[in-house]
Amino acid sequence: MTHHVASQKRVWNFSPGPAVLPLEALEEAQRDLLALPGVGASVLEISHRSKIFESIIQAAEDNIRKLLKIPNNYFVLFLQGGARLQFGMIPLNFLRQTGKTAEFIVTGSWGAMALKEAQTQGPVRAIWDGKAEGYRRVPRPEEYRPSPDAAYVHFTSNETIEGVQFRVEPEVGDLPLVCDASSDFLSRPIPIERYALLYAGAQKNAGPAGVTIVIIRDDLVRRCPEDLPSMLNYRKHAEAKSLLNTPPCFAVYMVKLVTDWLLRQFGDLQKVHEHNQRKAAILYEVIDHSNGYYRGHAHPEHRSLMNVTFRLPNESLEKKFVSEADKAGFMHLEGHRSVGGCRASIYNAMPIEGVQALKEFMIEFQKNNPA
Amino acid sequence: MTHHVASQKRVWNFSPGPAVLPLEALEEAQRDLLALPGVGASVLEISHRSKIFESIIQAAEDNIRKLLKIPNNYFVLFLQGGARLQFGMIPLNFLRQTGKTAEFIVTGSWGAMALKEAQTQGPVRAIWDGKAEGYRRVPRPEEYRPSPDAAYVHFTSNETIEGVQFRVEPEVGDLPLVCDASSDFLSRPIPIERYALLYAGAQKNAGPAGVTIVIIRDDLVRRCPEDLPSMLNYRKHAEAKSLLNTPPCFAVYMVKLVTDWLLRQFGDLQKVHEHNQRKAAILYEVIDHSNGYYRGHAHPEHRSLMNVTFRLPNESLEKKFVSEADKAGFMHLEGHRSVGGCRASIYNAMPIEGVQALKEFMIEFQKNNPA
Repeated sequence: MTHHVASQKRVWNFSPGPAVLPLEALEEAQRDLLALPGVGASVLEISHRSKIFESIIQAAEDNIRKLLKIPNNYFVLFLQGGARLQFGMIPLNFLRQTGKTAEFIVTGSWGAMALKEAQTQGPVRAIWDGKAEGYRRVPRPEEYRPSPDAAYVHFTSNETIEGVQFRVEPEVGDLPLVCDASSDFLSRPIPIERYALLYAGAQKNAGPAGVTIVIIRDDLVRRCPEDLPSMLNYRKHAEAKSLLNTPPCFAVYMVKLVTDWLLRQFGDLQKVHEHNQRKAAILYEVIDHSNGYYRGHAHPEHRSLMNVTFRLPNESLEKKFVSEADKAGFMHLEGHRSVGGCRASIYNAMPIEGVQALKEFMIEFQKNNPA
Repeated sequence: MTHHVASQKRVWNFSPGPAVLPLEALEEAQRDLLALPGVGASVLEISHRSKIFESIIQAAEDNIRKLLKIPNNYFVLFLQGGARLQFGMIPLNFLRQTGKTAEFIVTGSWGAMALKEAQTQGPVRAIWDGKAEGYRRVPRPEEYRPSPDAAYVHFTSNETIEGVQFRVEPEVGDLPLVCDASSDFLSRPIPIERYALLYAGAQKNAGPAGVTIVIIRDDLVRRCPEDLPSMLNYRKHAEAKSLLNTPPCFAVYMVKLVTDWLLRQFGDLQKVHEHNQRKAAILYEVIDHSNGYYRGHAHPEHRSLMNVTFRLPNESLEKKFVSEADKAGFMHLEGHRSVGGCRASIYNAMPIEGVQALKEFMIEFQKNNPA
């Protein structure tokens, strides 16, 4: 049998999020959980106004700035509420009362949800929607045309459920480009200067659930309206350097440990990207060489490097696949409950050994379970 | 010298929040941080849709229901954003567009902040405000009179900064009573049926920063408006049983461990309350027997059992007190930056030994540092 159980009886965790974290980061958190060195209290117990916590959140920000080469005219904020709260905060700040329309390029379920949530605050429009095609690809630039006076254009860089990923940013001219990067954040280099606002729940590539990273250009921050509760106003968070109220301290600490690990292990996001490309290629090769036994969901050139979505010849084989994989130490290979099928999420912290082990399991499963 | 350094070099942590956690809960979290027993992955890495996480969040809810004897017509929600987001969510749901006024009994800095945030969404009115008296007490029922058609009446059961605590709920007749219980949640029994909505950031008595517990009566849930993003709508959270999106899994897990400990260690909140009364009495006795060297801030009958606020004869002695205490292993005895002075926060997880050690330190300090 081709499974692997690490020390501490850890399985290969293909969860779409919350997802596998680097073992080194977990070990460091475990070692210091009762008392941070030199502090005498757990990171779970220290004041967010203490020097030690200020140095932790600053280090987390510095690491993210370094990895993404973020220009100085952008703020990096640590917020709560997940991408889902951003679905609301963005239109509350930048759509409501503007008389403009928020425009969406919808390449999967999360983009559709972002549009629906924005609709509570003002007019929205999908300038491209892949639903009729089953969300299998991203559009070519000639397939969509934002209004010249749109409030902003929103897209989802990687659709976790369908496994569809943009290779390059959509072309929107001078319009503010807003991106939900929850599931490919810190997985590859991106030109931040093309974005007005980029947000990501940490729980795929950057840390545990409970903290959302928002990278926002200063001109947007200046435009936040006055009539919002402060927690919903990006300017208040920017002015307070993410310490408007008690932040999710432990989740921020874990983001520091995970980004420390990225810098130590890879050095930069180009190297992270190459590693992720190698991992994804291993699984897509199994799929493409299975004589149609495994069928990838997305068009090959728009396949996600993060979420490898695929079907088996029928649902009963899919169930058997997920269940046998689970027994063999490969956790959470089921597709999202809304679409079914199978999905292997292989974020930054999934080692190449885990992907190779899954490859062997897939080949073996096909042999033992002919269609 | 009268300080104590526990195993793992832990100090006595008097932080106002995030605050000391039960050592047993930290030890359990540490033991299982790389892999939950029988799961093979860290609680930081598991899907929030997994059976194991569902059992964790259900156990946390069950524990809170048991401790507070919560009737079935109340929902218990685990949200994000801290009490500060509640300052906004409550008026967004229950003030805006009602044509009514939200009324506040203001007994300290947090109540004043709650009023200010609500003001962004509609008319507000302080029906009693202790500011002119320096926030030293709570009002008698005859000192305030809510409007018969107020949207709701809000109060802060314990003011963390000033150290002022309600002993019994304000009298508001049939009006919806809304309470920020952030800093005395789970510290004593309360009659939940008198409340329409009670909320608390976990990071004082119930867990780490990053999760907010909201207890809300079903008739309020039914009144939530449709035009809000779902993350700001209590009904959406209630319908989804706090799993509308990825919750702050680790913080919820810690709430489970902390409430497990409360039930194991004390059995019920009456016992927790008696323990907290004993601890507070030790420190207030030092203050009251110091011949005016230590001066308590609040009127004796309104003193907080959670946050013991006091002054020394002058600011330079206060600085010396905080600094020497810190060296002796008593962390975070400084008052809030907005009011100065000293403050010892002695939430549920502060052992009586820590309070006794601080008592001795205070007596010794007075001897060695005459006014």
